[in-house]
Amino acid sequence: MARDERGVTPQSEDFSSWYNELVTKAQLVERGPAKGTMVIRPYGYRVWELLQAELDGRIKDTGHENAYFPLFIPESYLKREAEHVEGFSPELAVVTHAGGKELEEPLIVRPTSETVIGEMMAKWISSYRDLPLLLNQWANVVRWELRPRMFLRTTEFLWQEGHTAHADEADAMRETLQMLDVYTEVARDIAAIPVVPGEKTPGERFAGAVKTFSIEGMMRDGKALQAGTSHYLGTNFAKAFEIQFSDAAGALQLCHTTSWGMSTRMIGGVIMTHGDDKGLVLPPKLAPYQVVIVPIARGEQADAVLDAVRDLAARLKAAGIRAHVDDRPQVSPGFKFNDWEMRGVPIRLEIGPRDLAAGTALMAKRLGDEGKTAITLADAPKTLIGALEDFQKYLLQRATDFRESRTATVDTWAEFTQAVATGWARTLHCGQAACEDEIKAETAATPRCIPADGPAESGSCVRCDAPSAYGKRVLFGRAY
Amino acid sequence: MARDERGVTPQSEDFSSWYNELVTKAQLVERGPAKGTMVIRPYGYRVWELLQAELDGRIKDTGHENAYFPLFIPESYLKREAEHVEGFSPELAVVTHAGGKELEEPLIVRPTSETVIGEMMAKWISSYRDLPLLLNQWANVVRWELRPRMFLRTTEFLWQEGHTAHADEADAMRETLQMLDVYTEVARDIAAIPVVPGEKTPGERFAGAVKTFSIEGMMRDGKALQAGTSHYLGTNFAKAFEIQFSDAAGALQLCHTTSWGMSTRMIGGVIMTHGDDKGLVLPPKLAPYQVVIVPIARGEQADAVLDAVRDLAARLKAAGIRAHVDDRPQVSPGFKFNDWEMRGVPIRLEIGPRDLAAGTALMAKRLGDEGKTAITLADAPKTLIGALEDFQKYLLQRATDFRESRTATVDTWAEFTQAVATGWARTLHCGQAACEDEIKAETAATPRCIPADGPAESGSCVRCDAPSAYGKRVLFGRAY
Repeated sequence: MARDERGVTPQSEDFSSWYNELVTKAQLVERGPAKGTMVIRPYGYRVWELLQAELDGRIKDTGHENAYFPLFIPESYLKREAEHVEGFSPELAVVTHAGGKELEEPLIVRPTSETVIGEMMAKWISSYRDLPLLLNQWANVVRWELRPRMFLRTTEFLWQEGHTAHADEADAMRETLQMLDVYTEVARDIAAIPVVPGEKTPGERFAGAVKTFSIEGMMRDGKALQAGTSHYLGTNFAKAFEIQFSDAAGALQLCHTTSWGMSTRMIGGVIMTHGDDKGLVLPPKLAPYQVVIVPIARGEQADAVLDAVRDLAARLKAAGIRAHVDDRPQVSPGFKFNDWEMRGVPIRLEIGPRDLAAGTALMAKRLGDEGKTAITLADAPKTLIGALEDFQKYLLQRATDFRESRTATVDTWAEFTQAVATGWARTLHCGQAACEDEIKAETAATPRCIPADGPAESGSCVRCDAPSAYGKRVLFGRAY
Repeated sequence: MARDERGVTPQSEDFSSWYNELVTKAQLVERGPAKGTMVIRPYGYRVWELLQAELDGRIKDTGHENAYFPLFIPESYLKREAEHVEGFSPELAVVTHAGGKELEEPLIVRPTSETVIGEMMAKWISSYRDLPLLLNQWANVVRWELRPRMFLRTTEFLWQEGHTAHADEADAMRETLQMLDVYTEVARDIAAIPVVPGEKTPGERFAGAVKTFSIEGMMRDGKALQAGTSHYLGTNFAKAFEIQFSDAAGALQLCHTTSWGMSTRMIGGVIMTHGDDKGLVLPPKLAPYQVVIVPIARGEQADAVLDAVRDLAARLKAAGIRAHVDDRPQVSPGFKFNDWEMRGVPIRLEIGPRDLAAGTALMAKRLGDEGKTAITLADAPKTLIGALEDFQKYLLQRATDFRESRTATVDTWAEFTQAVATGWARTLHCGQAACEDEIKAETAATPRCIPADGPAESGSCVRCDAPSAYGKRVLFGRAY
């Protein structure tokens, strides 16, 4: 592979080309043979595994249990909740033949599992003692995409979908917001994405939900990525699937249900939040390799250096650091430096004969500090644990600063159009669908969410001067 | 729930009814709405998660990386390997419509992924330096089943499938046998199933394989369950998908590939290897709850006992034991004892006011020791860790003894029919397909495998007197 084959279009020149080229060149993903599908390669899948472990632990710590529901859903199930089927119909993949025969009823490949899980909840719940029922599954889902984009919109993707049933609205709303908090924390503390949590406006709600909440991250092109959603479904699915319970007095009542999901889309969010012209930048908590060590020696000294490098890697691994030795004989150190920069490894160590003699290594961070720092081999595990923590914090701060610099509180249409051209606008809006549509047609911006921490405020709509809705400012931006 | 609703048909009366009733009543699984699909409930899914963690660790320790390949495979891919498509055709589920339109080429819902992974391997491999390529994926697969049975044969199931590419036959065979060893170890040390590893006879090979190996466990009805398979695929898929590499001399060569899989079927194996008339018996390493504590107190003393029980549970959890307190107020201690026996919890502890005053608890094992033993609360974590280890060993020994007692080395047809009526026969066989078919028609027994550790031996076929094949005895039995 020649050096120029590794380069990608600089982010600053063409964000979209940068992204599309980088996900393949960094060996995160590859197009699958069927339209819009993706192959997640080991380097990309490891990021997913690390994210999964963090999220799964928090899902279990909040009392949920994992289960698994079928991939195939009878077509009739989808139709039981009117808004739900209307929302998902255009995206469905349908199995019509199986076992060599045409099926009597076509099977839908799940786009989401509210319906089949609703059917099962109705079987499992009879008394108030069975509530709350707190379930989650890790699964693949299929939504036919006309304009697929790796990680962001693919025909098939991986996610977790939580589904819970509760005795009343208050308990279900507590759950909905708790999981929004969990997503906010995972995005911020693990992916170093300073997302904004908030409620969606009615036009952006999940098909079948009473309220939808999301976390929104700002990508480095100023656009928003919805990185997780949490829905309060009211009694809509409970009615459609007869999810009922006897209360303490023996009266039959409908359950209040929720659902919430986070997907492989988050990997796209990590790439677009932290990456730069040179390629990926991975937060240490999600980096398959946190430290890559490049031995620099030829001839007689090569063996001694390689031994020392392997010994160092073993010590780093024992200290819990994901370290990797790049001992490829066929490529130069310079090639390796560029390669691992492009692949986003947080910290690179270089060790040559002189470093070895001095008991040191040269440390280079992927971003932030310029140049290289000599560190002592004896203290390397401790030094690197600290450096990785600092790097994780640095990325979050950098992304927060970037988001703040591109978000404006605006009250006039001129300010609004200027703000959403490069980032986000916090503004008052009338809440009317027709007005949202006009804004979208003119600026490509849509309401991302009503930030949860926004102060109470009222006034007139930035677009049409009608009285503002929601009692708060709404965040608008162009979105993925 | 009345007591008689919990009972299941005794295993000794009707093994098949026992199994079908138990998997539902123990809340492991539920029938899904689409034919042959299953819902894996939290109690069953936790068994799968525990097995997954053990297997995934070993897959990574042997140098494999996880990845994810698409669910949908173009129909034309399946057809490129002639034996492969012939073997799988009757079982395929086909997506013909998606996004509201008929597809130009139907998509197959993966029954296994050799084809799509082969296509990708061809893209990723160019030089001998890229080999071996060692991949694995955790995924759902679909095979249309005419006679579905929960965990054992379901239309959709979960598994891992490993796929590797090598420079030559020797390296690929080493891999094939290494993964057979990993499966043998996981079955034996984690699931407490003393499986027999060996090669399959030609008639039982995977569609497209040169050699197939399996692990076979004996269930408590004397039948065999194939609990994992490992295939050497030769260059069959490499030819079909052009998986090639330049060797050190620059010459283009075909790769030798392997594939290997273990699935949710293993849960069925655990149930049928260890269960008894009272219900499930779970090996501690796969038990969602290893110890269930039942507080026994009413009125004034209830709170003190419950506090002590919760404190004990916290101490056990801190010691790494999966402990659960059954504090359901609406059911009696006797109901709880039966319930957890049916659900296979290895150890039950009972604590009442007198035990509390004495600083003890009563320990009852699910199987093996009769009666209850008093243990001191102060030493409980240590005592229970030891008791769980003993219980795990006990189950393996019990299953090994059972298998040995039901396996006979036979040289006459009369002995053979007797042996396979209740278990397995080790015998010499001619290796002819017609003779295998006759044996199957008359006894329902099929060749399970040629045990790897069998001594070299030749003679005449137990059925037809023709010279024996394979140079070893073959294991025959009825199978799931």
